[in-house]
Amino acid sequence: MGLSKAFQVLSLLLLTFHTTLVASRPRPEPKSAWLRNSAKRKGFPGYSKREAPSGTDCVDTQLGKLAAPKPNVWAGLTNDETASVTAWLFAQTSLNLTQTENATEWDNTIMLVELMTPNKTDVLAFLEGVVERPPTRYAHVMIDHRADENPYYADILVGPLPLQNGTNGSATWEPLTYPFTKQNNGRVRNLDADDDTLYSDWLYVVSASIKDITLELWNGTCLGLDNDTIDVWGIDPLWQDDGIIRWDTFWNYPTSDFDAETLLPLGLYFMSNVTGRDPSKWSLEGWLYNDVFYPTTDAFRAAFWSPGFERLPPNVEDTWADSDQEGTVPPADKIYPPSLVAPAGSRFRVDVEERYVKWMDFDFYLSFTRDTGLRLFNIRYKGERIIYELGLEEALAHYAGNDPVSSGTSYLDSFYGFGPYAFELVKGFDCPSYATYLNSSFYTAETTHTHLDSICLFEMDAGYPIQRHSTMNYVSSTRNIFFTVRSVSTVGNYDYMFSYQFYMDGSIHIEVRASGYIQSTYYAKNGDYGYHIHDALSGSMHDHVLHYKLDMDVLGTANTMQMTTLVATTETYPWSRGKSRNTMKLQRSFVESEDESKLFWAANGATQFSVVNTDKPNAFGEYRGYRILPSEGTIHSTVQNSSNLVNAANWAGYDLMVTKQKDSEPRSAHPFNSQDVSDPPIDFSKFFDGESLMQEDLVVWFNLGMHHIPHTGDLPNTVFTTAHSGLQIMPLNYLKGDPSRETVNMVRINYKDGVVSEVAEFGQKEPVCALDFQPIEPDLADYKGDVVIRKFPYDPSDWYYETDSIV
Amino acid sequence: MGLSKAFQVLSLLLLTFHTTLVASRPRPEPKSAWLRNSAKRKGFPGYSKREAPSGTDCVDTQLGKLAAPKPNVWAGLTNDETASVTAWLFAQTSLNLTQTENATEWDNTIMLVELMTPNKTDVLAFLEGVVERPPTRYAHVMIDHRADENPYYADILVGPLPLQNGTNGSATWEPLTYPFTKQNNGRVRNLDADDDTLYSDWLYVVSASIKDITLELWNGTCLGLDNDTIDVWGIDPLWQDDGIIRWDTFWNYPTSDFDAETLLPLGLYFMSNVTGRDPSKWSLEGWLYNDVFYPTTDAFRAAFWSPGFERLPPNVEDTWADSDQEGTVPPADKIYPPSLVAPAGSRFRVDVEERYVKWMDFDFYLSFTRDTGLRLFNIRYKGERIIYELGLEEALAHYAGNDPVSSGTSYLDSFYGFGPYAFELVKGFDCPSYATYLNSSFYTAETTHTHLDSICLFEMDAGYPIQRHSTMNYVSSTRNIFFTVRSVSTVGNYDYMFSYQFYMDGSIHIEVRASGYIQSTYYAKNGDYGYHIHDALSGSMHDHVLHYKLDMDVLGTANTMQMTTLVATTETYPWSRGKSRNTMKLQRSFVESEDESKLFWAANGATQFSVVNTDKPNAFGEYRGYRILPSEGTIHSTVQNSSNLVNAANWAGYDLMVTKQKDSEPRSAHPFNSQDVSDPPIDFSKFFDGESLMQEDLVVWFNLGMHHIPHTGDLPNTVFTTAHSGLQIMPLNYLKGDPSRETVNMVRINYKDGVVSEVAEFGQKEPVCALDFQPIEPDLADYKGDVVIRKFPYDPSDWYYETDSIV
Repeated sequence: MGLSKAFQVLSLLLLTFHTTLVASRPRPEPKSAWLRNSAKRKGFPGYSKREAPSGTDCVDTQLGKLAAPKPNVWAGLTNDETASVTAWLFAQTSLNLTQTENATEWDNTIMLVELMTPNKTDVLAFLEGVVERPPTRYAHVMIDHRADENPYYADILVGPLPLQNGTNGSATWEPLTYPFTKQNNGRVRNLDADDDTLYSDWLYVVSASIKDITLELWNGTCLGLDNDTIDVWGIDPLWQDDGIIRWDTFWNYPTSDFDAETLLPLGLYFMSNVTGRDPSKWSLEGWLYNDVFYPTTDAFRAAFWSPGFERLPPNVEDTWADSDQEGTVPPADKIYPPSLVAPAGSRFRVDVEERYVKWMDFDFYLSFTRDTGLRLFNIRYKGERIIYELGLEEALAHYAGNDPVSSGTSYLDSFYGFGPYAFELVKGFDCPSYATYLNSSFYTAETTHTHLDSICLFEMDAGYPIQRHSTMNYVSSTRNIFFTVRSVSTVGNYDYMFSYQFYMDGSIHIEVRASGYIQSTYYAKNGDYGYHIHDALSGSMHDHVLHYKLDMDVLGTANTMQMTTLVATTETYPWSRGKSRNTMKLQRSFVESEDESKLFWAANGATQFSVVNTDKPNAFGEYRGYRILPSEGTIHSTVQNSSNLVNAANWAGYDLMVTKQKDSEPRSAHPFNSQDVSDPPIDFSKFFDGESLMQEDLVVWFNLGMHHIPHTGDLPNTVFTTAHSGLQIMPLNYLKGDPSRETVNMVRINYKDGVVSEVAEFGQKEPVCALDFQPIEPDLADYKGDVVIRKFPYDPSDWYYETDSIV
Repeated sequence: MGLSKAFQVLSLLLLTFHTTLVASRPRPEPKSAWLRNSAKRKGFPGYSKREAPSGTDCVDTQLGKLAAPKPNVWAGLTNDETASVTAWLFAQTSLNLTQTENATEWDNTIMLVELMTPNKTDVLAFLEGVVERPPTRYAHVMIDHRADENPYYADILVGPLPLQNGTNGSATWEPLTYPFTKQNNGRVRNLDADDDTLYSDWLYVVSASIKDITLELWNGTCLGLDNDTIDVWGIDPLWQDDGIIRWDTFWNYPTSDFDAETLLPLGLYFMSNVTGRDPSKWSLEGWLYNDVFYPTTDAFRAAFWSPGFERLPPNVEDTWADSDQEGTVPPADKIYPPSLVAPAGSRFRVDVEERYVKWMDFDFYLSFTRDTGLRLFNIRYKGERIIYELGLEEALAHYAGNDPVSSGTSYLDSFYGFGPYAFELVKGFDCPSYATYLNSSFYTAETTHTHLDSICLFEMDAGYPIQRHSTMNYVSSTRNIFFTVRSVSTVGNYDYMFSYQFYMDGSIHIEVRASGYIQSTYYAKNGDYGYHIHDALSGSMHDHVLHYKLDMDVLGTANTMQMTTLVATTETYPWSRGKSRNTMKLQRSFVESEDESKLFWAANGATQFSVVNTDKPNAFGEYRGYRILPSEGTIHSTVQNSSNLVNAANWAGYDLMVTKQKDSEPRSAHPFNSQDVSDPPIDFSKFFDGESLMQEDLVVWFNLGMHHIPHTGDLPNTVFTTAHSGLQIMPLNYLKGDPSRETVNMVRINYKDGVVSEVAEFGQKEPVCALDFQPIEPDLADYKGDVVIRKFPYDPSDWYYETDSIV
């Protein structure tokens, strides 16, 4: 992740549009966003599903309609539920809520209304038919409680749902506490309560105090005016160990429409003590320029205007920072390139209403939340659940630098949320044009925003077979057609592409790639922290750690993590005539308890990890299981005991972690961990309390990621080709053989002396008709962005288009 | 790596068809292969190139014909050259050669006639115009010198070419010695000289001596008869430290056409001392059954027929071992799947004659050798050479087991050669149907075999963009169209798919995947060496180490390997007010000499390796270079100081090795290293003699590979999805920015409030016409296998089809 804008804009959606100032930067809008309804349209259809658009006459009609076997208990609240909860909350005078559009920094507002993810225990009872009715639904609500000298965020539960008439007497609210390790009545302090005042009464005031210098250095100002050419923002999280301290720095605004601001740092930093809610008590603690610290503005000014003071050049936008086509077009590049097509339409089905997907022998449910975006639940393979839950938990981008802003930046992106920034995908570019696209929604500021076509589902040919073998008598080869579910979240400057891929051999590939703009830093004596990549620019070094939850259930919930390690050994055998032999062997062991379950990938990949069920060996006595293997460069955090994070990301320093599943530990991270890093709402290290992991319900937490030392090739954008990380899970002694043998998508050719005696095919149908290529070119002018429906006052027919990004 | 058949069949092509016995197993043929000419056809066109067959009317004709800027000096000998050298060799009475078809085990034969790869020094002088003419050509010839009590293989050089009239007086031969670390006149002993006698006079004799037991246990015999149902073969390399010792074991023949023998071990082993060439002096040293060693046949027989002797079941073929479709066809699987198409034809060009390829800003030459198959030379990017040579050097498959055959198996596959087994690819399965296919050739037994369509070249859409970024105002996305050159070598049981992929960001991806049959072992008390995967079958643990040469030239040959390491650190800064901060920084260093150039990937991927030119920093003072990064699970050998290999694979235990390029160290491995493992022709460790690596011509040797612990999912075949390894090289501070910005294959969409204000395209042409999908379905009945042209007596018009595999 990596975010271009820190505290002032981070909350554009999360903290809502309660002031024009926040919503305005960098391009001011005169009104709260949801009041602008010039683009209102009628007839927004809610969730849409686009069938593969290519050659409709050619679509094979063998597949019927899919109906989920059970309702999707993770699917989120309906529009009506959200509206009823919102209305109910406003009726609770004890909460003292103000509508976002009218709220000041000293009013309480609703930040989130979302389905409370039901407990696994309750869901399993329903899925397995032990109980007939799905778990009772509750709304998870987050309140931004700012009418207080000590503002806080509060997680509360509202329910049971459905509420009747919006004020049903049976509904209650209570603090949400059981999923958190911090026992504080579901509350965490809010360090951003005064984010408007911070700019108006502090950052712009400080900036104004050196206007002479900003004009001299950069011919610009940062005063909160429309014609400002300079922006100011800084560290995330704030320093919290000695008052609340922030470091900020200046950035040039881009002069074009490109989102290049994070490439335009200016190299002047200042430190502020912003403890408490009274700006008059905040203090300026010093300036840094060219690696020299000045304790006061006077000292800095005096130095600046002294003879011989070294003035450093600004970073200025030009085409180097813009992502449009640039440079000599390579030969043949304008010819239409090879492409992906689906000549017979989709071969998977989606129950759009229930967000239930079935492809070949896999089926699962989709879910989507504000914090982490796309999640998959109850992944079954051949009718047996193998994964109860799979999804991102958190993403850390830990920077370092010789300057305080890079050094102090360790974004925990669920603060911003992956849901709000899972934008509409570009058909034919982000996913094949024939993909099926689904919408996703999130709540903000008394509205539900819907990202149209923000989840794509498609099959494609991998370009290599899944199996082949040749002899002088025959050759056999099997196509590798795999299925992908994908979403992209652009959390500020970075675009994370999350793909879940399913294969005919029963394996699943979990992949993340990163593109978009790097967050760079000013190049001044910081060669120890990055490459010098442009005029005065450093590609600030940083680690991306993408943290996932993988709740596996292999033949039930009683599972064990097996380790099979290849070890070099010297052995003497009955047959070696007394000679010792340098060879290798396997050591098999188990992760026995939470005392030993924070794991690293072994050197040289020597240890294979698998989740097995030791109570259910196969016919040969081997434990049936699923292996977990890093497949594309996974890493964990370089920094140890980070001064920035303290206890806020205690999952970042390992590769693989195993805990016993508990309904009270559904998530390893809380979006507001950054607000109290020493004592965050969820301190993952507290999950490890020595419990046995032998034949228990296990949750595997794993990290993907990249060490990113940006270089010139990251300009203007990082490329997905090399910024990637992935992990596979694959059946291990789980079935009797390779299940890809079940496909008919294979051929065997028997031949001899140049003559083919048999082309064995296995029932693969021919394409139904010729493919008309042109129609699969999507009309990109159909791109829409987000649909917004206001929830309070509620009028589902009164929707409009509007998209909001962090920048 | 990984071979199903050991010494008796390993040499089917290499050691030629000099006896019917060798050529016969497992399915006897009455004659030397090249005498069977029933399939003779006229008009074989030599190298063919198939244009993308789809919609010929639609092919964009913008591209002209490609002509290599220089002749391909690595392309191999012409048919006429090979024939002339062969004839010349037979004229040299001092060599005392016999034609393969007439040779006995006591005759000398020609094993190989191939182009001697020219020295880099000489080639560079030619490529860079220092000299006008290409380097003088020589033939590299291998002689199997068996007319001797101490048989040996001899590498010799013949030339200069062209020879005139076949016996030109100016031509000479000399021992080839300069590329080898062993100074032995280009000779290495031949442990396989008596491979026919070994079967007829020993293995079948020993097998006959226990016919009572093989009949009792398996109802079969192993006598060298057509109705044998049992095969026998064993370790590779042989034990060489105390005489020449071999262990052999019995295998059931498959009863079908499938190549399943390596799944059918029978669990009885015997040890033989086969020192010397006189079978009468060979001795049986003992038997092993069910982990019990019997020093004599009598002892084994006595035990076997004793009451209570535990008889173990055989492994028997059935559909579990066959790769055809099996089991319930998944829903929708019969519908024609998504596919890859090239609606406007190819966007790259090939000079077929010179094997020169140009795709976008990359161009390079192809080469193909017996030992290692496909190689790439003089890879240029934007007109500058970045890689002089890239290709496989050797592949190790190191097994282990509680039985002597698994324990003693450490295949070095260049012994068998990757060239002879690079079979014809299956269009539409192994590569897209629209790919361009090239032939490859190798020499064996006075013939040249040509694998038709055994190299494929194609572009495809990766299914994810190379770049994207979203804001609330715009979204941009760039297609990731990449180019692949691929060949597959099936060295016995295993199919290695070698892919070289080129990307628009200037990166190259080197990938290997493994499919085909595992070599398993009998399951008897060997749970420490593999999983029990079928009735009496162990998935024998083994390491695949695929060893590559990467000769990089970054802005010339004076290069340095830079290491940039992310380290955790605690620092105090001018601005940290005396507080220490836990953070990270970069350490930059160089691999200074060959004393420190055997390298491992760092734990947690902390070290980034790059080849830079420190004399040519970029405008910002950073060294321009190419980074080398593992991208998909690379490993090195687990076994340390392997008893099987001794000095034969001293490259296997590291991840990355750097040496100074020398014309005398062109290869790190010799195909006959297995014949004298203590003192092999090329001992890679001797390359490391302390020379400086600072701004020298560097060669990077790296290993891909997999630790393979086969499980039930490897039955019948290992799948390419999870058996993969890869490495990327990518520009690092090499250009001013990301070169993928040069493509027009991108879009930017500006939008607001549901309305698109601009769809920016950049000159990408539309497909020329509708795509008729059917014709791209290749006619698989066109599969041919290999074309053979006899070289002595030479008649290029007298060719025929014949394909030979190890099994």
